[in-house]
Amino acid sequence: MATERIQSVSLGKTSSSDFQPLVIIQFSTSSKQAAIEWLVAKLQATRASGGAELEVSTVVMHHNQETLLYVGGTTERLLLGADMMDMEKKYGDGNYREFSIHDAHNFLGSEDLDSFLTMAEKQKIILHEIEAVRATEEDPHIPGYENIKLYPGKSIIKKYQSRNILTTVFPIHDDEYLKKLGAEWYQMKHAFKQQPIDRIQYYFGDKIALYFAFLGFYTIALLPPAMIGIIYFVTSWESMYREAIFSVFNLIWATLFLEAWKRYNAELSFRWGTTDIVSSKFEEPRANFYGKIGRNVVTGKPEPVYPKWKRVARFYGVTVPVVAFWLVVAFYVMLGYFYLQALADKKYENDKSWFNMGVLYLPTAIYAIIIGVVNTIYRSVAKKLNDWENHRLQSSYDNHFIIKLILFDFVNCFISLFYVAFYLQDMTLLRSHLAALLITQQVIGQIKEAMVPFIFMRRRKRQVDELLKKTSTVEKVEYYNNEVDDGLQKQVNLETTMDEYEGTLDDYLEMFLQFGYVFLFSSAFPLAAVWALLNNVTEIRSDAFKMCKVFRRPFAETASNIGAWQLAFELISVMAVITNCALIGMNPEVKKLLPTDITPVNTVLIFVLVEHIILAVKFAVAYFIPDTPKWVQVELARVAFKSKQALHKERLDASTAKRLKVQQMMSKDMAKQTSF
Amino acid sequence: MATERIQSVSLGKTSSSDFQPLVIIQFSTSSKQAAIEWLVAKLQATRASGGAELEVSTVVMHHNQETLLYVGGTTERLLLGADMMDMEKKYGDGNYREFSIHDAHNFLGSEDLDSFLTMAEKQKIILHEIEAVRATEEDPHIPGYENIKLYPGKSIIKKYQSRNILTTVFPIHDDEYLKKLGAEWYQMKHAFKQQPIDRIQYYFGDKIALYFAFLGFYTIALLPPAMIGIIYFVTSWESMYREAIFSVFNLIWATLFLEAWKRYNAELSFRWGTTDIVSSKFEEPRANFYGKIGRNVVTGKPEPVYPKWKRVARFYGVTVPVVAFWLVVAFYVMLGYFYLQALADKKYENDKSWFNMGVLYLPTAIYAIIIGVVNTIYRSVAKKLNDWENHRLQSSYDNHFIIKLILFDFVNCFISLFYVAFYLQDMTLLRSHLAALLITQQVIGQIKEAMVPFIFMRRRKRQVDELLKKTSTVEKVEYYNNEVDDGLQKQVNLETTMDEYEGTLDDYLEMFLQFGYVFLFSSAFPLAAVWALLNNVTEIRSDAFKMCKVFRRPFAETASNIGAWQLAFELISVMAVITNCALIGMNPEVKKLLPTDITPVNTVLIFVLVEHIILAVKFAVAYFIPDTPKWVQVELARVAFKSKQALHKERLDASTAKRLKVQQMMSKDMAKQTSF
Repeated sequence: MATERIQSVSLGKTSSSDFQPLVIIQFSTSSKQAAIEWLVAKLQATRASGGAELEVSTVVMHHNQETLLYVGGTTERLLLGADMMDMEKKYGDGNYREFSIHDAHNFLGSEDLDSFLTMAEKQKIILHEIEAVRATEEDPHIPGYENIKLYPGKSIIKKYQSRNILTTVFPIHDDEYLKKLGAEWYQMKHAFKQQPIDRIQYYFGDKIALYFAFLGFYTIALLPPAMIGIIYFVTSWESMYREAIFSVFNLIWATLFLEAWKRYNAELSFRWGTTDIVSSKFEEPRANFYGKIGRNVVTGKPEPVYPKWKRVARFYGVTVPVVAFWLVVAFYVMLGYFYLQALADKKYENDKSWFNMGVLYLPTAIYAIIIGVVNTIYRSVAKKLNDWENHRLQSSYDNHFIIKLILFDFVNCFISLFYVAFYLQDMTLLRSHLAALLITQQVIGQIKEAMVPFIFMRRRKRQVDELLKKTSTVEKVEYYNNEVDDGLQKQVNLETTMDEYEGTLDDYLEMFLQFGYVFLFSSAFPLAAVWALLNNVTEIRSDAFKMCKVFRRPFAETASNIGAWQLAFELISVMAVITNCALIGMNPEVKKLLPTDITPVNTVLIFVLVEHIILAVKFAVAYFIPDTPKWVQVELARVAFKSKQALHKERLDASTAKRLKVQQMMSKDMAKQTSF
Repeated sequence: MATERIQSVSLGKTSSSDFQPLVIIQFSTSSKQAAIEWLVAKLQATRASGGAELEVSTVVMHHNQETLLYVGGTTERLLLGADMMDMEKKYGDGNYREFSIHDAHNFLGSEDLDSFLTMAEKQKIILHEIEAVRATEEDPHIPGYENIKLYPGKSIIKKYQSRNILTTVFPIHDDEYLKKLGAEWYQMKHAFKQQPIDRIQYYFGDKIALYFAFLGFYTIALLPPAMIGIIYFVTSWESMYREAIFSVFNLIWATLFLEAWKRYNAELSFRWGTTDIVSSKFEEPRANFYGKIGRNVVTGKPEPVYPKWKRVARFYGVTVPVVAFWLVVAFYVMLGYFYLQALADKKYENDKSWFNMGVLYLPTAIYAIIIGVVNTIYRSVAKKLNDWENHRLQSSYDNHFIIKLILFDFVNCFISLFYVAFYLQDMTLLRSHLAALLITQQVIGQIKEAMVPFIFMRRRKRQVDELLKKTSTVEKVEYYNNEVDDGLQKQVNLETTMDEYEGTLDDYLEMFLQFGYVFLFSSAFPLAAVWALLNNVTEIRSDAFKMCKVFRRPFAETASNIGAWQLAFELISVMAVITNCALIGMNPEVKKLLPTDITPVNTVLIFVLVEHIILAVKFAVAYFIPDTPKWVQVELARVAFKSKQALHKERLDASTAKRLKVQQMMSKDMAKQTSF
């Protein structure tokens, strides 16, 4: 039956040499043949018969019985997919519009339809089409797996994924483009150039490009505070205002940076045509979401339903106490650290040897490492809890995970600083402690992110050399349908050994904590911005290297902004106002500036007043700076105006015809009335 | 020439008795005949020749040479207008959609097309069509007024308005509907019933209905604080927690009220089909906006251009200093009041006679009156400044005016309370002063809003009686075109004498100040909510009475929310946290609750901490309560899903046809390529 369908599709093609594989589906070695064949048949079947109408070539590697599907599509099929997905493409007038096949010739670049869609877009369309293949009434279970039930409307590929019948679905890298991109992006000779953001977006999609744009923008924004930090460090200018000036500058700067980022973000969105994108209202349940089969209240389609009260009960009954427990652990780890530090201090005081001076720094180093360890454990706990909460939507799942991580990491990394600053009230200790934490974490981070990937890459090269031997010399590969080019076969084998890119979460989280270190206690350690700047210049390159060389290519994702992270950074900038005002208020030097006859209570009240004023100004500034640059607003209005005008012209032209119709209707009405 | 056009239009009509006048255009007695005739011709001309294609009857009253135009339109013309305006109407599936004539029979109520549009909608369409009549290249100036230049694309009616050639354009009341509406709405026997909000929206439009919905919702929200206030007043329960409990309750309540209002607002928007409405990006310049003729950057049409720097210079160079001056005046008036009060107190202390006891309350009464007087003067200054700033858009003009009024009224009304609370720190005085201000202002307000309209109405009745004599007995009215029914003629004469409704600004401002009185210092005067509640129960009825009996009918305006006022109320609720925490912190009773060995500085810090926590909780609550109720979200998603599904089905059906087309294009491409 499968071959029947394949033939019926093949008829439409001009020649089999057209076949360009774009997406790889990798099965586990234990996957049953029946399930694989059924999926292939579904992917090849016509859309009218519920298939995806894609081109599929099956490759079985005899040495390990692993099956790979190479999936591609004809140009017309991909264009139809772009139309169905409402993909935004550049129109003849230079603005983005939803692509429509009817109107295809009016879009830019439509002279050559084969290269009209970018590779990333084609891969995204294929993923969408693969996921849109659904079980029907006649598919009670996956062939070969009697116990894996299906219900009508369930995405088949998602079921395969959640039951581990297939390992991964990934898009193929474009080695040529990647080589050029890498040369511009992460090679050291370009260290002080802008990143090729538009090319990154072209290849990796909006979401990843936005991360790198944010990282670059933030790094440049660190320049002024870093310069002031250096000036403070090299000059011995002592003044009562010193810290206050730096703090106030930093608070204003952080606010302006976040506002400026929003504007730059709006500009990028405009350039990439994602301004109008909103996360879909009709988002499908996650692959791992489970529940009794019921009906979606919006679409009326059958899908698993999981009672809300159960999720709420799990969240408040288990998640909240567990997270609270780990926050307490973080707190005690911190207390333990200060106990150890006191011991070390005592030891050094009794015997000021070189050895004991080393011991003096030991507790902080240990603490920084323990923070990392606790963090790793907590993370796996948080992941399990998050899975267990059984969120229906991927976006809800992601947001709950982000909140869990942010909350814990914030406490884990900053609680000792708050303890030193506001409980011990020891400014010298705060400075050295902040410096130690920041620098240790950055060094660990750099090792993890720059050294490890490098080692991985070398290890992988070795593995691939072995693979190459297997595939080219032993020739144990079997093809069905279309032959796959040897070079491509090697490339795909290399890519299946690559790590999966886990998303931008960790990268943002690292920047979030760094932002906290730099701005929360800026008056205590002005050099923080310098260290952060140095770190980020390397970070950009090592992240870029990872994207190009270490990870399997991710599917391009649409995004118009950095989502929850904008709020997270803004929260830090609000907290920074409170912490910095408190730090300055506690500074005895600054208190000297006030009249001598002022009572301590009034001193506090003055600082509280100042804090409230700064917060009010901050909110007002954020409110009054438009989030979208004027020129982008004008351009957007122009597009909207043009399309409205076109619509109205059409209506005006048609109005005579319409009028006739209304008159007909009215005379019918009359006829009806008179017939009574 | 005019008659020619009229005849060409008349042909389309079945009989002249169909003519239903909906909108009145009233000319000044000094308006030149040529200008009137030209406008009539423009309104009657076909759309193809740049006219509005409306039905117009001209009525000249001989006793004062005043000219009135009665404007109406055929059903087909109005339906076409609804289509062009993208008016939202209820579709067959119960949801709102942009009305389209093509699809007219699928909308609810389309069996009888004459009554398909409501009267308010018809009037709105006519206003829109009147305003859309624009000058062409052949209209260099208004006929009869050589010096009033026109430029191509200028709305002719707006030019007439800005140059006072016409007095007003207003829609006619529907006496029958209004009688029923009034019976339900403001008659005292319905004092404790819900307002007929949907019927208000039907008759007056969204904007006014939203004001009354807000007023009603807020009044109900005052019930719990008022009840607690009464309990506190009648019981002598004394506790150290008394004020603290009431304050905390009020803070939570204010936050919840504002969030709940947003949800109710979303529900109303959904019910009225205004959810998707955004203030137009292509809003036209205000009638009174002036400048050199340039081009609109978006539409490319000619329109006046006024350099931004001039407006900024006027704003910062003149407006800001003048407003600051008036704020200082308000401050000195307040100081003067306390000086007078001190004098009165002294007099009473020296001689505790009944007379002097009266004198004791005199300064507060005088102050309340002076506040009103200063306010009136400031308002006319603010109006002039706002006009002079020459804002291009009506929305920008309105917002600047609202900000000017809110800022001043806030200072003018509340500065004395802040002075007493935080400078004098006299809680007894705060209570009596707050009570005096609130009650005096409410009494004045009630007189202005309930008594004066009543008097006006009686006066107007007399005037109309006189008019009736003139029109019916002397018969000095001349008609052109269509005859106007005698009853209608009388009604219109009555309505021309009515006051124009100035918009919802004053009504919101009154509520805004009252909200401040109730929540900013709630721990000082728990009875405030009781007074506010009593006031508002009357306020609803007197405002309703004004809408129905005192004012000319306003054009229905579309709005999906209460705009800037939401933010203004939220700002007050944030300030209330600060003021109430400070008041409780200053309360010696509450301080007794803290450990006795605590330093004054730490006491302050504890209250600052509490304040920050309450603020954080408040923001979190506001963030996490969804602004739209779940069921509305589901309904909206359902509509969106259905239309998307319909679109996709259409596309799927057409895909075979499309495919052919693409194949044709591709073979053409091939042909091109081979021809090289």
